[in-house]
Amino acid sequence: MASSLEIVSKTRVIEEANPLLSQSTEYEKGCYHRISHESKSTKTKMIFGLFLPSSYQNVDSYNTPVIFFLSGLTCDDTNFAMKAGSRAFDAAEKHGIAIIMPDTSPRHDDTVPDINSYDLGVGAGFYVNASQSPYAKHYKMYDYITQELPSILQNDFNIGKDGRKSVCGHSMGGHGALTIALREGKSSWKSVSAFSPICNPVDCPWGKKAFETYLGAVDKGKVHDATCLMEALDSPIYDDILIDQGTSDNFLEEQLKPQALETAAEKVGQKVTLHMRKGFDHSYYFIAKFIEDHVNFHAKYLV
Amino acid sequence: MASSLEIVSKTRVIEEANPLLSQSTEYEKGCYHRISHESKSTKTKMIFGLFLPSSYQNVDSYNTPVIFFLSGLTCDDTNFAMKAGSRAFDAAEKHGIAIIMPDTSPRHDDTVPDINSYDLGVGAGFYVNASQSPYAKHYKMYDYITQELPSILQNDFNIGKDGRKSVCGHSMGGHGALTIALREGKSSWKSVSAFSPICNPVDCPWGKKAFETYLGAVDKGKVHDATCLMEALDSPIYDDILIDQGTSDNFLEEQLKPQALETAAEKVGQKVTLHMRKGFDHSYYFIAKFIEDHVNFHAKYLV
Repeated sequence: MASSLEIVSKTRVIEEANPLLSQSTEYEKGCYHRISHESKSTKTKMIFGLFLPSSYQNVDSYNTPVIFFLSGLTCDDTNFAMKAGSRAFDAAEKHGIAIIMPDTSPRHDDTVPDINSYDLGVGAGFYVNASQSPYAKHYKMYDYITQELPSILQNDFNIGKDGRKSVCGHSMGGHGALTIALREGKSSWKSVSAFSPICNPVDCPWGKKAFETYLGAVDKGKVHDATCLMEALDSPIYDDILIDQGTSDNFLEEQLKPQALETAAEKVGQKVTLHMRKGFDHSYYFIAKFIEDHVNFHAKYLV
Repeated sequence: MASSLEIVSKTRVIEEANPLLSQSTEYEKGCYHRISHESKSTKTKMIFGLFLPSSYQNVDSYNTPVIFFLSGLTCDDTNFAMKAGSRAFDAAEKHGIAIIMPDTSPRHDDTVPDINSYDLGVGAGFYVNASQSPYAKHYKMYDYITQELPSILQNDFNIGKDGRKSVCGHSMGGHGALTIALREGKSSWKSVSAFSPICNPVDCPWGKKAFETYLGAVDKGKVHDATCLMEALDSPIYDDILIDQGTSDNFLEEQLKPQALETAAEKVGQKVTLHMRKGFDHSYYFIAKFIEDHVNFHAKYLV
């Protein structure tokens, strides 16, 4: 069993059904929780958000599927929930799916200098296991997302068993979602989608800086680059990969490069449904606008 | 014509329709704007949020209806938009309604001491015209909401003419919505609704403190108290007044008191539809969950 978990806050987001009133538990159906724990991966305290649908049951006979939402640079565990949560939770409620919203980096440690940079260090873990000092000690976000959180969900919540988990993310979190799914495959992640993902980080300033700093060289990031991973595939993994991207996104040309991924996917025959959304930018309004589509997309594979 | 307006930010929240691509203007359809101006009422710079639906036209032949959303204690012009905006904007888009989101107090002035209090001063204007020093100089939120902003909307945006405006609010903003509508009537505000409103402020700590400080005595707040205004009515004003209230709201018993308003409304025969929502608290998740109902409610009277 996992780490001792502590509820930081619990907020009702789905109306309580009368017949269930007496069934309140520590973790409550129809609520959005923030939960803190001592992470074995990062060796720090971490906080994650967790939405439990009304159908949630903490009994062995039923297991709840889950979507991981990975956030972007500067975000913590709360941004998605605050700005797009209500729509996401309602969509997930409809399908009986839980949503977990992890933080984007360790932040309760004193080993990393305050570098005053939005794209490195706190809030910018890039979903890799850092090998370079001073980040190597705590920046183990790949293990945290792919091993520790799934294990906590299975053991402490009865969620996401039998591979009933999918992954979605925004920007750096879109990079996280795509690379984790492409690396681990369908037995671990039933489906993958992304908003405005960093698609080819070895070829953009954000990615180069992160891989140099965390991994010691940009080239070492190729195994965490969605386009490179796609190019290396022998055959398609997923029926479809859903991506939404705003046409007025300031970062589109220099940092995100969805066309690079699309080209690589075409070569291997992996279907990618890339919606270029006219006039939208990189903000959470964009996520909120289309998150229901993404939840419905994952529900096809999870439910 | 009004005050010079300055666009602080413009964010697309409704997908751009192809045929309209060439019609971009300074104020853009399907976008959420933050707009700053020098307010004549508060004699400070003020910022408001403004959502313009795709049907918006800045021509005399067509005028767009509008919902005013008044926020609660500690909020500024952005909280509603960030946390409930996406759902509200989609609902308003469906009906062709604009939404204006004013700030809750002046905040660009140096005449008010930093009192370090969440329920007085900055973020806590209570939608009255203060008569007491030091607030009397700038705290003219009643005039700002009922006179200045409607005039700006009509003259600079061609919005809300012919009384095609309604008002909704949360907590202190619910108090603002109810009192403004009950004071000014149906010729000025077609409909009114509220989330978790302060219904009887002369009889609760928040209201007493505000009225004493801004107006000089609690009793002077009776003309800005929804329950007192309701009691003073000769006959009903509105077909219906919609109120949503969470049953797990920490402020329900001591500060909000919807039953006082309900009792007063029953006596005068004013219909109030009060939904007590099981398990919900005072947060923006509650607003986000039910805002579509409120927009649909106002659309019945505006469109």
